[in-house]
Formats: sequence, C-alpha cells, structure tokens
Amino acid sequence: MALDAALSELSTVLGDRLSRSKSDLDAHGASETYFPSAPPDAVAYPESTAEVSRILSVCNAHGVPVIAYGAGTSLEGHTSAVRGGVTLDFSRMDRLMTVHQGDMDAVVQPGITREALNRELRATGLFFSVDPGANASVGGMAATRASGTTTVRYGTMRDNVLGLEVVLADGRVIRTGTRARKSSSGYDLTGLFIGSEGTLGVITEATLRLHGQPEAVSSGICAFQSMSEAVEAVVAVIQMGLPMARIEFLDAEAVRAVNAHSGTNVPETPHLFVEFHGSEAGVAEDAARFGEIVADFGASGVEVATKPEDRTALWTMRHHVYWACLGLKPGATAVVTDVCVPISNLAQAVEETQADIAASIIDGPILGHVGDGNFHAILLVDPSQPAELDAAKALAARMNERALALGGTVTGEHGIGIGKRAYMEAQHGDAWDVMTDIKRTLDPNGILNPGKLIRP
Amino acid sequence: MALDAALSELSTVLGDRLSRSKSDLDAHGASETYFPSAPPDAVAYPESTAEVSRILSVCNAHGVPVIAYGAGTSLEGHTSAVRGGVTLDFSRMDRLMTVHQGDMDAVVQPGITREALNRELRATGLFFSVDPGANASVGGMAATRASGTTTVRYGTMRDNVLGLEVVLADGRVIRTGTRARKSSSGYDLTGLFIGSEGTLGVITEATLRLHGQPEAVSSGICAFQSMSEAVEAVVAVIQMGLPMARIEFLDAEAVRAVNAHSGTNVPETPHLFVEFHGSEAGVAEDAARFGEIVADFGASGVEVATKPEDRTALWTMRHHVYWACLGLKPGATAVVTDVCVPISNLAQAVEETQADIAASIIDGPILGHVGDGNFHAILLVDPSQPAELDAAKALAARMNERALALGGTVTGEHGIGIGKRAYMEAQHGDAWDVMTDIKRTLDPNGILNPGKLIRP
Repeated sequence: MALDAALSELSTVLGDRLSRSKSDLDAHGASETYFPSAPPDAVAYPESTAEVSRILSVCNAHGVPVIAYGAGTSLEGHTSAVRGGVTLDFSRMDRLMTVHQGDMDAVVQPGITREALNRELRATGLFFSVDPGANASVGGMAATRASGTTTVRYGTMRDNVLGLEVVLADGRVIRTGTRARKSSSGYDLTGLFIGSEGTLGVITEATLRLHGQPEAVSSGICAFQSMSEAVEAVVAVIQMGLPMARIEFLDAEAVRAVNAHSGTNVPETPHLFVEFHGSEAGVAEDAARFGEIVADFGASGVEVATKPEDRTALWTMRHHVYWACLGLKPGATAVVTDVCVPISNLAQAVEETQADIAASIIDGPILGHVGDGNFHAILLVDPSQPAELDAAKALAARMNERALALGGTVTGEHGIGIGKRAYMEAQHGDAWDVMTDIKRTLDPNGILNPGKLIRP
Repeated sequence: MALDAALSELSTVLGDRLSRSKSDLDAHGASETYFPSAPPDAVAYPESTAEVSRILSVCNAHGVPVIAYGAGTSLEGHTSAVRGGVTLDFSRMDRLMTVHQGDMDAVVQPGITREALNRELRATGLFFSVDPGANASVGGMAATRASGTTTVRYGTMRDNVLGLEVVLADGRVIRTGTRARKSSSGYDLTGLFIGSEGTLGVITEATLRLHGQPEAVSSGICAFQSMSEAVEAVVAVIQMGLPMARIEFLDAEAVRAVNAHSGTNVPETPHLFVEFHGSEAGVAEDAARFGEIVADFGASGVEVATKPEDRTALWTMRHHVYWACLGLKPGATAVVTDVCVPISNLAQAVEETQADIAASIIDGPILGHVGDGNFHAILLVDPSQPAELDAAKALAARMNERALALGGTVTGEHGIGIGKRAYMEAQHGDAWDVMTDIKRTLDPNGILNPGKLIRP
C-alpha cells in the first residue's frame, strides 16, 4: 500500500527512469558472490541530486527502503534488497565534474567507475589511486571504505575523499569536508559516511584527492619457498622504510590459477608482486634494495619490469586472479574472505588459514595486500553442493575469529553488508550500540539499506 | 545541589585527587590565548579508565559538566569550564603502555605529551610524527584533530590514530578501531571521536601509528622577495612530487620576531623552512631538486643543514616563533588565527590577510604549514586596550570568511572550541545539525564539554 503510493509518486517524478521490469529487478538483486538473489520492487535512475533528494523524501514518508547501487561489485551482499524497496542506480550520475589541477583534487558524481575516472584524468598528469581490483564505482567504493593494491602507499578511501555531498534519509542535502587538505572544524562527517554502506545517507558527489602520476614506475615479482618467508620479507621491507606503491602476495595455488587462466608459466610457489613509484633513480634504488632484502628470506627469480607493457601484463595477471581462481573449478561460485591483522601476526594468520583449508573438503587460493596485513581466501564452492557452502562458511568463520583474536578486523576492505553482520558484536561490543544509535538518529524510519551492518 | 551531591560522591572515590583549591581551579580555567578565565568547580585526577567511567556516571546522573584536560595548550578555549563542573586532568594517566615494534604502533594513555612519548620511543627506531609545536598531550591532540609541521608527509591525528578507548557520557567504556592498518568494519568511530573536542566521549587510551626514524634527514631554509613567490614555489614543489617531510612559511615580520628572540641574523624577508626524510642519497637528491625548483621563483640564500645540531637549531627557531612573536610587543596576548585553503588559493588568502593587517591598528606576523594550505596570523593585542582586541577579532573574522569563500575551512588544526563556534553555521549549514543530533544521541544530558563546537 505504502509501496504503491510511493512508486506512483516516484513515477511522476522519474517517468520511465523508474523501472519495474523483471530483468532490471533481477539484475539489481543479484549478488557477485554466494548470496541468494533479493530483487527490489523498483529501480530508479536519478540524474541529479535534486531527484535523489525527492526520491528519499517520498520513500521516507512512506517507509520504503532505499538501496544505493553503483557497479554492483560489492562482495558482502551490500546491494541486496532484502526488504524490497527502491534501488537507486547511479549509472546516469557518472560524470567527472571538475578537476582542480593545482590542488590535485577532482569532484565526481558517485556513478563514475575508477577506470573511467582514470581514463579521463590521463592527460592531467594526475591519477586516482584507490584500486580494489574490480572496476567499482566511486560512490560504492566510498560507501564500503574500499582500498586495494595501492593502499600501502596511497591509503584507502578514508584517506582519499576530501568531502562529500550526501542526501539524508529525509531528503535534506548536506556537504561534508572542504577542498582544503585538512580541517579541525567539527565532527568528521566525511569519515562517518565513508564505510557506512548506504545506511546513513546517500552519496551524490565526492571530492577526491588525486596523486601525481609517478615519473617512473618499476614492478617486479619474486618467488619464495614458503608463505611465511614471503610474509617475513614484507615485514622486513616495511621496517626498512622502502616506499612500496604495491606489495601483493599470491600463494602457490593462486599462482597455479593465474598460470591456467593467463597461459603464463610462473613457478607454482608463493610469490610477491611489488611496485615502486618515484624518480628514475629512486625506483631503481628501491628495486635494488628490495632485491637485497628479500634475498635474505630465500627469494629467487626476482624479475623487474620497467616497460609499461611488461608492467601491465604483470598487474593484469594480478587483477584477474579472482576470475582465474573461479576458473580452477568450473561452475563454481566463491566465498571471498577478507581479514586484516597487525602485520606481525600476518604469517600466523595465513599459515593457520592454509592448514584449515587443506583439512577441508574445498579449495581456497590465498592472496593478499600484505603491506596492510590484509588477505583473502577465495573459497571455491559448487553451488549445487550445500556441504561445500557449509564448509566455506565454517572456514570463513574461523578466519574471522582468528583475525579478532590476533588484534585485527573481520574485514579489511569489503565491508559488513549481510555477510559479516554476525561478527559485529564480537568485534565491537558496546561500540556497535553506538553505531546503531547513530543510525537511528540519522534514519529514524530505517529506510536506508535496511538489514545491513546495524544491529537487527 | 546536584553539584554538591556529585562532588561528595566523587570525593569518596578519589579522595584528595579531587581538588577544589583555588589555584588548581584557576590554573585549569585559564586560557592559552585571549579567552576570559572560566574555572571549573573541581579538578579530578583520575588514575584509571575505571575511575573515569565512575566519574562520568556520577556526573551524568547529576547533570554536572565534565571537561577533559591534557596539557592545556589548546588555543580556542576548549578547556574553559564555561558552565562549571569537573575538569578531568589526565596528568596521572600519562604512560606509554606498549610499543609493538614489528607493527610500528604504540598504545598510550591520553595524558602523555608528544615530547615525552618521543623520548621514550627513541631507542626503538620509531617515532610519533604529529608535531603541533606545543608540547601537547596525545589525548588533547586527538580531541582537536591536531596536526602541524609534519602533516604534509605523515598526516594529521586522523591519520595517525588506529584506535581509541573512549568512556561515554553514561560511563560505558568502548573500544574503536583495531591494531590492523585498515578496516571496513562498521562506522568509523575512531574518526568520529577524533576532533570531537571532548563533546562525545572522553578518550582514555589511544593506539598510535608510528613511523620509522629516517635514515637521513636534510633541512634547509631559503629567502624570497615576496610571499607570493614563496607560496608559488611550494605549489610547484608539491606538483613535482617531492616528498617533503616539512615545508613551513614565515613572513618577513615573523622572521624579524625570530631574529629578536633567538639572536639570529636571518634576512628579514619571507622564508621557507623545509625538511626531507629518506636515505642519504635520497635526501641529497630531494634537497638538490628543491633548490633548482625554488630558484625559478627567485629564492636566494638556500642553506641546507644535515648535521643534527644545525637542524635542531633551525627547527627550534621555528618552534619558538609563537613566543618570539609575543616578544615583539611586551605584555601582549595573541589572537592566533588558523585557516586552511586549497593550495591554489593560498597565495591570495595570505596576501589579502597581510593587506588587512597592514591596514589595521595592530601587528600580526604570519606563518604557515604551507604544504597543507594552512596558515596562522599571530595577532598581537594589548589586553588593556579593548580597541586592539576588537581589531584582532575583526581581522580574524575576515580571514575566516575569506577561507570559506576560497573553498577552505575556518580551522586547519586548532579546532572550534568557543572561539570558532560562530562560523559553524556558515561552514557546515545543515551538516551542523547532523553533528548536533549525534551529540544529543551520545550525550543526552549535555554534560560533555558544554558550550563548545555544537549548536547552542
């Protein structure tokens, strides 16, 4: 009843940009991973902040859920319409609005993807650094506090968003932050909305910090006898203060997946992928020092790529690893885990995870942004075999509990969504109540992405 | 009545660590700058989180204000007990609890000062980077989102606090963040409490990010003909990607103050102070490139100091500039302004400020953390001359309005307190209401540092 009234009001505002076609609903209710489909009742395609504000006022008045949707690449069921409602698809709000070259920042709409943004920035000599692998939208990346391969040098979304325009549940439009590089003016609302997964407000614009394209880039890979030596090598390199732009770990099984997928012939042992950004002399010095340090940990086959095409081949291999892993088991879906621990506990966390997986009925290659202490197991399950999904969930549960016991977090970069809500109590205790109180204050009718993150 | 009941309960908990001596009350009600004295009714010296929790429950039950107090170095009246109540002095909770060498982090109590912390860290090869000039307490620095000279490279308190223990208004104790380098688990409560100026909770422990002491450090100063050339040189150096650890601006009058205070003989024109951290070869290359770039902007007298004693002399000069400026006008007090703008607007902001000051009846040397777009005018007033204080306030108001018009903030690092609350509406609009709503949710009785930051 309330839903019908809301949709009828919205269709006068949006016309055929309010879709109720089955294919549209299904596409927006689908999960990138293992969550069951949960389609919304309608999909709205707003073209302006004013339209988003109008949609939210209408939905708030009628108590209809609103789910913000960027590129649909989230991994914890963030965009599932578990209570129906209206999905706000930002594909028509995907513009790079302004680049402030001198200030190294850009103002964008939330629907722009990071790859599209970087294509548009190419001529400016600047780039947007956050790289979660998938070609996610900037709005979605802000909402999940995404990070990825370059975090060790350039930071997460928390570090690379200077300000936001946000539409609140009741339709009010606020601005957080400024274009200044820092501010001590009031509560950090930018930081509060980043990682709030669409539960506190809807992001309609973001001011992003950009970085200068490095004068020189040097990438490399090297092989280790054991995972623990690879991780110990990373710890040593970090403590020496080497300014790595990327430092990624693949276990032997992930390398096997990459070889099968890309037709490469990399030795199937644990590997590190590394990249340095700087001056010609600087990256050469950094790569040389890196080689010396990792040699002490038994690294072999250190290969350095400085030509753009060689570097692209290397990182394409790394970026395709998720699909490469899926290829190991035809027809498989994946439970993608995502824990992050203090780096001194990383070797233990990875080793115990590997042993757990080896003792289970399923396979699970491991890869990680080891410079941050963050790693993933891609747990491969046949969706027709409930025992495999159960095994994967049990493995994921043990990884999460282990991460907490080791002083870490149940998610380094993927967020809570539906999939990790069961761990919020264990991780945050009474602080989860504080989050829930803030949610109720900003969204008293509970319309913003219900069923995610907050205490039920 | 309520106050007497609360103090009587607290004195049974704290004994003689609840002080009502006039000298103690006056010391805690005094301002570092121009605000009138506003002493509390009592000063508590807690020794544990449990005691802080107990104090807050008692004060909350009786509606008695609680003001957290570190080193008393805040500049916007943050610690003034404008509605009386109990000041929580953290001088007995000032320990470095743990250093995690491998993870490059440390857990500290809020009362430790940054200088004491860095003395204790010296043997570890690590250091805590945030340097606001004054020897502030870590708790106070977190509460005001402090930053300072090293922000351009190492970030603000927002970037260097991994997690907090916080006592809420009702006495509940929560933990925010983890020791992992990043997390996407729920709302960023760490970020919310950082910069909340004691209005949302009281910080009783902080986990700090540390950095490796650089292998080599190179510092330098150079002179410019004009302020705008100095600022343009900084913009150019940043755009070239030179990794400066510090880049500070002093105008001709600030240099004059330094000469008078330190007995130095620096030419009295605008200057930049710069520092590079890295390897021996790296800092030499950086300093050389810096010299080449600034020469294009008319820099002269580039002097590089690599010996520790020379560097210390240089930065001591810089760190004493506040007192040096006060020394320009015997008996003076200062209105210390603190705006931050996008760097492309920095030259305009500083130039217009200088012209304003020149046209006024008072003096005001200017200095700035120019790499962040942040600068201060030290407006010197004779406290017995109301016309001078009025002139300073008018100049400060124009600086704040100009910063907002140029896309910046009314405070880069000092915070809001009492002094900047009049600008919250102009800077944040409806977002100030959101802050106020969050405040009421977390502190329904309004006991936490009342009269600061939040809408009256």
